[in-house]
Amino acid sequence: MKSVNLKQLAQELSLSVSTVSRALNDRYDISQATKDRVRALANQLDYEPNPYASSLRQNKSKTIGVIIPEVANHFFSLAINGIEEVARSNGYHVLIYLTHEEYQREVSMVRLLASGRVDGVLVSVANNADSDFSHLDLLGERNIPVVFFDRVCEGVAAPKVTTDDYDSGYRATRHLLDQGSRVIAHLTIAESLSISQRRMQGYLAALAASGIAFDPELLLRSQNDKVQDVKAIQDLLAQRPDIDGIFATVESMAMSSYEACRNLGRDIPADVKIISFSNLEIAALLAPALTTITQPAYNIGREAARILFQSIIKNRPLSVAQSQELKSELVIRASTASRSAPG
Amino acid sequence: MKSVNLKQLAQELSLSVSTVSRALNDRYDISQATKDRVRALANQLDYEPNPYASSLRQNKSKTIGVIIPEVANHFFSLAINGIEEVARSNGYHVLIYLTHEEYQREVSMVRLLASGRVDGVLVSVANNADSDFSHLDLLGERNIPVVFFDRVCEGVAAPKVTTDDYDSGYRATRHLLDQGSRVIAHLTIAESLSISQRRMQGYLAALAASGIAFDPELLLRSQNDKVQDVKAIQDLLAQRPDIDGIFATVESMAMSSYEACRNLGRDIPADVKIISFSNLEIAALLAPALTTITQPAYNIGREAARILFQSIIKNRPLSVAQSQELKSELVIRASTASRSAPG
Repeated sequence: MKSVNLKQLAQELSLSVSTVSRALNDRYDISQATKDRVRALANQLDYEPNPYASSLRQNKSKTIGVIIPEVANHFFSLAINGIEEVARSNGYHVLIYLTHEEYQREVSMVRLLASGRVDGVLVSVANNADSDFSHLDLLGERNIPVVFFDRVCEGVAAPKVTTDDYDSGYRATRHLLDQGSRVIAHLTIAESLSISQRRMQGYLAALAASGIAFDPELLLRSQNDKVQDVKAIQDLLAQRPDIDGIFATVESMAMSSYEACRNLGRDIPADVKIISFSNLEIAALLAPALTTITQPAYNIGREAARILFQSIIKNRPLSVAQSQELKSELVIRASTASRSAPG
Repeated sequence: MKSVNLKQLAQELSLSVSTVSRALNDRYDISQATKDRVRALANQLDYEPNPYASSLRQNKSKTIGVIIPEVANHFFSLAINGIEEVARSNGYHVLIYLTHEEYQREVSMVRLLASGRVDGVLVSVANNADSDFSHLDLLGERNIPVVFFDRVCEGVAAPKVTTDDYDSGYRATRHLLDQGSRVIAHLTIAESLSISQRRMQGYLAALAASGIAFDPELLLRSQNDKVQDVKAIQDLLAQRPDIDGIFATVESMAMSSYEACRNLGRDIPADVKIISFSNLEIAALLAPALTTITQPAYNIGREAARILFQSIIKNRPLSVAQSQELKSELVIRASTASRSAPG
């Protein structure tokens, strides 16, 4: 028996070919009742979709784009692995684009991707992104789904996969206080990023809970340049010899703090205790081993990609309600050991 | 005065519009005499090219693709920075694709890029690539220029940017011997890679020069899995307690060696000295600081991209003769200190 085609199914059901096709593809804009009716007849008549025609008609690139600030940071290299696991199981390629923390590169790349090169985009925004996110709206206008991860854009109505940055900022600061630090420097990346704001709010809340007044002199922002960052941290430690703790909200600032302490002859943890957000695999091999707030980077990438593929595969629009918040982990090592219990 | 257009220039010179356009674009198939004639008149008549029309006519994607095994390795993240500097100065975007050391992913990605998404490709091949490189020929057939860097493909007629791997392997081994090591394990990635072969040939030559016989039991190949690698190194060190030196040809194997030594209670460098090919920025912050052969990763990326853009911009075919070999640097730190002079 020759199998039926879409047109025959549509005639039989008194529906348009488009409606039958959309029902078979489980599109969100077709009612469940219609989907059930179409599928029942399709099964009865042994309808076999032509996968090649279907792929052509949908004009899928079978590619997703990932826009991230950098890859030297281990958070992003792990997140990419999680993204690729999901992409691969869906038969997709992943193209990575680095913004190097530059807003103009991000804008330019989004425009390129919006031209139809990819079926979906995952974004972690650049740290000097100003508050104009209109370039991201372009993807929505072209029906290209977008999911944010880690460094999200509060102003854009898209799902976001983040971690418990406020709680983690609180716990990191609380840990330094528990270990005996009283004057804690806060090293951050751009204050405009929501993750930076939340981590800092956690820091401020933990200080307040211990009755310690906030001192704005203890805030230092990364210049995205290692030499400059080491110098700035040295200057801060020299001007404020009472600093006995450092909370780095980004891995690179922890490494710069290690170098600054070494250059100044400050002992970690005897003189200065250091904790950092970090996914550095070799944190335990550093001298001294680094205490970290470790984000579930792989899972963040995987969940963001899963949400994206729900949209790509089923042609379903994304909603902010699909956002997820995952938990980070405090991993205590020698860099925050108290005097009474050296690590 | 209204500026002249291409057609007017061509009429004036009694040449075809195509020839004039190609001469102005410095195409390789136009003689120098004709280029000089065309340019002289273009200057005289104040000819201004229309960059928008030119970009449309050439149908450029203004994008290059970079295919690499991984990003967690600092060599590749630095090389990408060098590539992006050159791409950017040419007004190009860089899309990165990770093979995760899997041959099939590499084949599949090359096919995707050959479909016309990019104007050129830079490749560092996967370590389990077998000897069939026919997928790379596809790019040549489509006139998409290719340049290899670091992990090159000897069998493909394309320019290659590499480092002095033989000399570096020799120097690394020589350094361990000078520091007192006599039984030196050699930790490598795939033997099929030309860089692995050259580094190992340097190791063998340095042993031979010191009259030390090669012991195949001292060779260990990475399984591309950290847990397995740490276990394999521990097993090797346990079976061969006489091992007093490790030469890791890849950064990840050095980090696994540190963990293996820590797990077994072997002191670095008193019991085992370790040297590694590595671009780890924080090598000096490890316990102990790691002695490295540091490749000029940024320059490798930059030179490979420069060669590629010579072809993209001038529509000139690439030749193997454009290949370059850069020099790596031995950076001595505490992990190879001899007993008489602790680091």
